[in-house]
Amino acid sequence: MSQLLPVYDVIVVGAGHAGCEAACAAANLGSKTLLITLDMNKIAQMSCNPAMGGIAKGQIVREIDALGGGSGIVTDKSTIQFRMLNLSKGPAMWSPRAQCDRMIFSAEWRDRVEHTDNLDLWQDDVIELLLDKGQVTGVKTRLGISFSSRRVILTNGTFLNGLMHIGRVSFPGGRISEPATYGLSDQLKEYGFAVGRMKTGTPVRIDGRSIDFSKLTRQDGDNDFHKFSFLSFAYTNSLEKRPCYIAYTNKVVHDILREGFDDSPLFNGTIKSIGPRYCPSIETKLDTFSDRDSHHLFLEPEGEKTTEYYLNGFSSSLPWDIQLRALRNVEGFENVKIFRPGYAIEYDFFQPTQLYPTLETKLIKGLYFAGQINGTTGYEEAAAQGLMAGINAHLSLHENRDFVLNRDQAYIGVLIDDLVTKGVDEPYRMFTSRAEYRILLRQDDADARLTPLGYSLGLVKEDRFAVFEDKILKRDRLMDFVTNFSISPEEINPTLESLKSSPIRQKIKLIDIISRPQVTIPKIVDSIPSLKEFIFDNNLREEIIEAAEVLIKYSGYIEREKLIADKLNRLENLVIANKFNYMEITSLSYEARQKLTKINPKTIGQASRITGVSPSDINVLLILLGR
Amino acid sequence: MSQLLPVYDVIVVGAGHAGCEAACAAANLGSKTLLITLDMNKIAQMSCNPAMGGIAKGQIVREIDALGGGSGIVTDKSTIQFRMLNLSKGPAMWSPRAQCDRMIFSAEWRDRVEHTDNLDLWQDDVIELLLDKGQVTGVKTRLGISFSSRRVILTNGTFLNGLMHIGRVSFPGGRISEPATYGLSDQLKEYGFAVGRMKTGTPVRIDGRSIDFSKLTRQDGDNDFHKFSFLSFAYTNSLEKRPCYIAYTNKVVHDILREGFDDSPLFNGTIKSIGPRYCPSIETKLDTFSDRDSHHLFLEPEGEKTTEYYLNGFSSSLPWDIQLRALRNVEGFENVKIFRPGYAIEYDFFQPTQLYPTLETKLIKGLYFAGQINGTTGYEEAAAQGLMAGINAHLSLHENRDFVLNRDQAYIGVLIDDLVTKGVDEPYRMFTSRAEYRILLRQDDADARLTPLGYSLGLVKEDRFAVFEDKILKRDRLMDFVTNFSISPEEINPTLESLKSSPIRQKIKLIDIISRPQVTIPKIVDSIPSLKEFIFDNNLREEIIEAAEVLIKYSGYIEREKLIADKLNRLENLVIANKFNYMEITSLSYEARQKLTKINPKTIGQASRITGVSPSDINVLLILLGR
Repeated sequence: MSQLLPVYDVIVVGAGHAGCEAACAAANLGSKTLLITLDMNKIAQMSCNPAMGGIAKGQIVREIDALGGGSGIVTDKSTIQFRMLNLSKGPAMWSPRAQCDRMIFSAEWRDRVEHTDNLDLWQDDVIELLLDKGQVTGVKTRLGISFSSRRVILTNGTFLNGLMHIGRVSFPGGRISEPATYGLSDQLKEYGFAVGRMKTGTPVRIDGRSIDFSKLTRQDGDNDFHKFSFLSFAYTNSLEKRPCYIAYTNKVVHDILREGFDDSPLFNGTIKSIGPRYCPSIETKLDTFSDRDSHHLFLEPEGEKTTEYYLNGFSSSLPWDIQLRALRNVEGFENVKIFRPGYAIEYDFFQPTQLYPTLETKLIKGLYFAGQINGTTGYEEAAAQGLMAGINAHLSLHENRDFVLNRDQAYIGVLIDDLVTKGVDEPYRMFTSRAEYRILLRQDDADARLTPLGYSLGLVKEDRFAVFEDKILKRDRLMDFVTNFSISPEEINPTLESLKSSPIRQKIKLIDIISRPQVTIPKIVDSIPSLKEFIFDNNLREEIIEAAEVLIKYSGYIEREKLIADKLNRLENLVIANKFNYMEITSLSYEARQKLTKINPKTIGQASRITGVSPSDINVLLILLGR
Repeated sequence: MSQLLPVYDVIVVGAGHAGCEAACAAANLGSKTLLITLDMNKIAQMSCNPAMGGIAKGQIVREIDALGGGSGIVTDKSTIQFRMLNLSKGPAMWSPRAQCDRMIFSAEWRDRVEHTDNLDLWQDDVIELLLDKGQVTGVKTRLGISFSSRRVILTNGTFLNGLMHIGRVSFPGGRISEPATYGLSDQLKEYGFAVGRMKTGTPVRIDGRSIDFSKLTRQDGDNDFHKFSFLSFAYTNSLEKRPCYIAYTNKVVHDILREGFDDSPLFNGTIKSIGPRYCPSIETKLDTFSDRDSHHLFLEPEGEKTTEYYLNGFSSSLPWDIQLRALRNVEGFENVKIFRPGYAIEYDFFQPTQLYPTLETKLIKGLYFAGQINGTTGYEEAAAQGLMAGINAHLSLHENRDFVLNRDQAYIGVLIDDLVTKGVDEPYRMFTSRAEYRILLRQDDADARLTPLGYSLGLVKEDRFAVFEDKILKRDRLMDFVTNFSISPEEINPTLESLKSSPIRQKIKLIDIISRPQVTIPKIVDSIPSLKEFIFDNNLREEIIEAAEVLIKYSGYIEREKLIADKLNRLENLVIANKFNYMEITSLSYEARQKLTKINPKTIGQASRITGVSPSDINVLLILLGR
C-alpha cells in the first residue's frame, strides 16, 4: 500500500471555509497535503447566509488575505454587492461586507484548491483517526481507505453527529439533504476529549418572484474602490450587482409565531444545547425582547441570477406552517412562497481550551481542530482558524516553531487567544468589542500588520509582497509630501469654507489640513494642483490615499494604543508554559491552580486572561519568575 | 392548511434530468406545478459522465428540444466540446454529442427551472404518497409537510433504497455523499407494484494534473454550426473548449484488475441485480471479452476550468486499491492521482410494463413514473420520459387526452413503447437499432417531425415556432431553386472532376448534381454564382442547407420507409385497449392471454410487439375485430 498512496504531511478533513484555508496554507508552504471532503461539488459551501465579512468579521477576512489566504480573493470574485460598513465612524470600525453568489463562491474556491500545488483532493467521509502512541498517524474513510499523514486537521463543521430540528420533527444530517458524520466524536471522547453540543439555525429561503419589493426598503451596495483582497485592484468581477431589501415584522407576525412556541424545539426541551447569542432565532428574539413590536428582516440575494433570497433575521426552528403563516403577514410578503423553511441543527464541538494556541490538541500530538468544531460560528472565524492550523501544522513539521498572533496584531490573534484561554459556552462570534486594541486592528492596514509576517513564513509570495511594498512606499511618499508641503490661505480657504472647516490665517503644512475631521484628500485635491499632480505622477490608488489619510488623522490614537500594547506585551512575552506544577503552588487560589493546570497558558499574558485567575495569582507567578 | 399551500396540479418528485423536464413541461403548459428536490444546489446534476447525447441519445435530445423541452438549450449553454458523431455515415446515424461543464449545466437548469412560470420549488425528501381511493392526492415529506396535488410524477433516479458498493465495502446512499430515499418503495410495493433492483456504476475521477497527456491520443471537438438546440444559432456560449483524451488498458492492467475479482461485489454474489449491458464495468468487460488485451479509456474533462476528469470505460466496483494500482500501469497514468474510486450502486426500479404509454401507472390513477425508476439508464432517456410524463400529466387534467408518440415519429416513441410493451430486464439504453425507421428519425429533422406537435400542445411557443417555420420555408425555397436550376457541363465539370465525380455531358438540373454522394452544396457553391447569390440573398444558414441536402440525397430511402411505416401504422391505429377479456379468448395461446392481460396494449401494433404474442395471436385479434 505504501507505494500506492503517499504519506502526507498534512491531511485536512472537511473542505468548508476552515478546511480550504488550512489545506491551501499547508500546501502553499510546501507540505504534501490531502484535503478530504464529502462532496467536491460543495467546496466552501456557504451553508448559512450568502455573505462574507461584516463588523469585525470583515477585518478578519482582510487579515486572512494579508497573510496570503484565499477567502478575500474568492469573496471579491463572487461579490454581487459590496459595502464598507460604519464608514461614518472612525476607521477602527470600518468593516467590509459582501453579498456573494453562493455557487460562484464555491466554484472559485474549488478552482483555487484544484490549482494549488502539493494539494491532493479526495471525496469521502473520514470515520476514524489513526493513532500511534498518542500521536495521529492518519485517517480512515468510509470507503475503507487508510491515508497516512503526520498531521491531521479536523474541520468538520456541523457534521459531527448532526441532528436537525423543525417543529416537532427531528432527523439526522449535517446540512439539509446531506448526511452527518459518525464515529469520529466517539473516538475522540474515548481519548479523553470533552465533547459538547451546540446549536445553530438557518432561516427560510424565499422565492423572490413572490415578493412585492415595492413595499420593502431597498439597500444598494457601494460603488467605490473598497474590496476584500489587497490584490483586488488588479482584476474586476463582472457579475451584475444586486440590492438587498429590508422588511419588518409586526405584532400580527409575532402573535402567529408565538402560537408555535409549544412546538418549538428551543422551548419545549428538545434542543438543550446553546445557540449563538448574537444570531438568535426569531422566536428567541421574541422571547428576549418581548416588548418590541417589530424586528428587521434582510432579504439577501443568493446569487447573480437566482430568484432565491436568504431571509436574514428570521432564523427559526418553529413548525414550518407557523413560519410560513407568520411571513404572509409581513408587508410585501402577502403572497410569499418559500423554497424551504428554517431549521435548527445540533452538532458536537470540542471545548477549545483543549487546544494549544497553534490549534493543536493537547491530548493528541499532530492533531489540529479548526472552525465550528471548536465552538465558533461564522465563515470568517472558521477560515481564520483553518489558516492558522494549516500554517502551524506545516511549521511543526518542517521548522519546529509556532506561528501565533498576538491580540494587538490581529483579530485572528484575539479569536484564537479567546478560544484556547477562555473556552466557549455559546457559539463564539467575533466582535470589535472583543479586541483591546481596535485602532491597531483596522481593515485598511491588515497588510501592514501581517503581510511581512506572511512573507517571512513563505505564504505571501513575491508578487503579493511586491504589491505591498509598493503600496507602503507610495503611502509614505504621500505622507512625506503632505508633511512638507505648505499651503496658503488663498489657495485653501474657499475649499475649507465649503467643507465647513475654519479658514486658516497663514501658510500651514498640508498635513494639518488633512488631520481635520471635515477634510479628506479627495475633497481638497482639486483645489491643490501640486497635490493632484503628485498623486497623478506617483500613480497613487485610492486605497493608498486612504491608508495615508487614516495614519494622518488617527496617529495620536494609534501611538497611544501602541504604547499600552507594548507595555502589556512584556507580560505576553513572559513564557511560563510547562515551567510550573501549578497544583503544588499553594499560594495560588485553588481555582487558579485548577484552571492554570487545565489551560497550561503559554505566557503570563494568556494566564491573566483566564477566567478565575486573579491579579494576585498573576503576582504570585511573577514573583516566582523573579520579576 | 388549505389557504397556506395551494393544491397543485402536478407535483414532480426529483429534479434530475427527468424531473426538470417534467416540471417545466407541465408548468409551461399551464399546470400549477411543484418540483421537490433533495438539494437545490444539485438540480440536473450529471451524476455520471459530463456529456450529453451520443448515438441515438443525441437524437433524443434534439427531439426534446423540438418539442420545447430544455435539455438541448442547457446542453448548448454548458458545452465545452461538441462533436457530430458518425458524420461519415448516412444522416440517419448522425448523432450530436457534447462534453459539458458539470457545474454550469446544473446552474443553467436551475436558472431555467427558477424562471419558469407556474413552477414552485421545494427542498425536501418525499417519503410517502398521499392516496385516496386508488388515486394519488399528494405527497408527504421528511420535514413533515403534506403537499396536495392531482398528479404526481416520481423521478427518483437511483435514490430509492440506494446501496453503494466498492470492493467488500457497502453503504447506503443515493449518490456518493448523498443520502438515499426510504419509504416510497415499500409503500408502492404494498400497493401491488412489482419492485425490482438494478445496478449501475461509475468510474474513478482523475486529477488531470497527474496525467502525462503527451502519451495519450487527443480528441478535439468540431468547430462548425452543429448544436443541440434548433434555437442555438441565436446565441453563443463563450466557454473555452476542451479536448478529450484516449488511453488504453493493457495486459498488466488486466492482470491487476483480475486480482480483485474475488473481492468484486459483481462476482462474489454481493450484487445480484443487473447492470447496463452496454455500459459495462471494466471487470465485466474483462470477463466477457477475455481474449482482448486492451480496452479504450476516454478522459472526459469535467468542466471549463477544473482539473477533474471522468474516466469513461473504467466503471468499476473493484476494491479501490486494485483500481488505482491498475491505472498506474496505463501508459500516461504512471503517476495518476484520483479524487475518488469508481463504485457501483443498486437501487429500486419498477417494471415499466406497469405503465400506460402516457407513463401513468396502471395501479394508481394520477401517478406517473419517469427516468431510472422505470429501469432505464442515461440522462437523455430520463429527460425524454420526464418531458412526456409532464405533458401527459397536464393533458389528463386539462384536456382529457393523451400525447403518445409513435415509433415512426420519434426515438422517444420507440423508447416509451419499448418500456411499456416489453418491460426491461436490464437498464434500458437507446440505440439506433431499436428503431424500425431510422431514416425517418434523423437528428436534422427532429423539428420537422415534432415542433408542429409541440406547437399544437402549447409547449412550443410562438418564437420557436416562427424560427421553425422560417427554416422550413427557406429549406423548401432552396429545394425549389435546385430543382429548377439547370447547370451546364462547362460550369460544373471542373468542380466535379476535383470531387472525383463523373462529368456531365449536357445541361442537367442542379438537384441531380447534389444527389451524388461525392457532392455537397458547400463543396460546389463557389463554382455556381447563382446558387451562391441565392443562398446569400435568402440568408440561408448552414443548418438549412444541410436539411435540404439530406432531403435531396435520401428522398428515396425516406419515401420507402414512410410507406412501410404507414402500412404498419394502420395496425398502430387499431385501438384494442379494454375491448377484450383476453383470458376468455381460448383461441389465443395461454402465454398471449397472460401477457395481453398484463400489458393491456392500446393498439394491435403494440400487441404485436409484446414478447410471447405471436403473429397467429394477432390474427385471432384481427378476426375478432372484423378485419
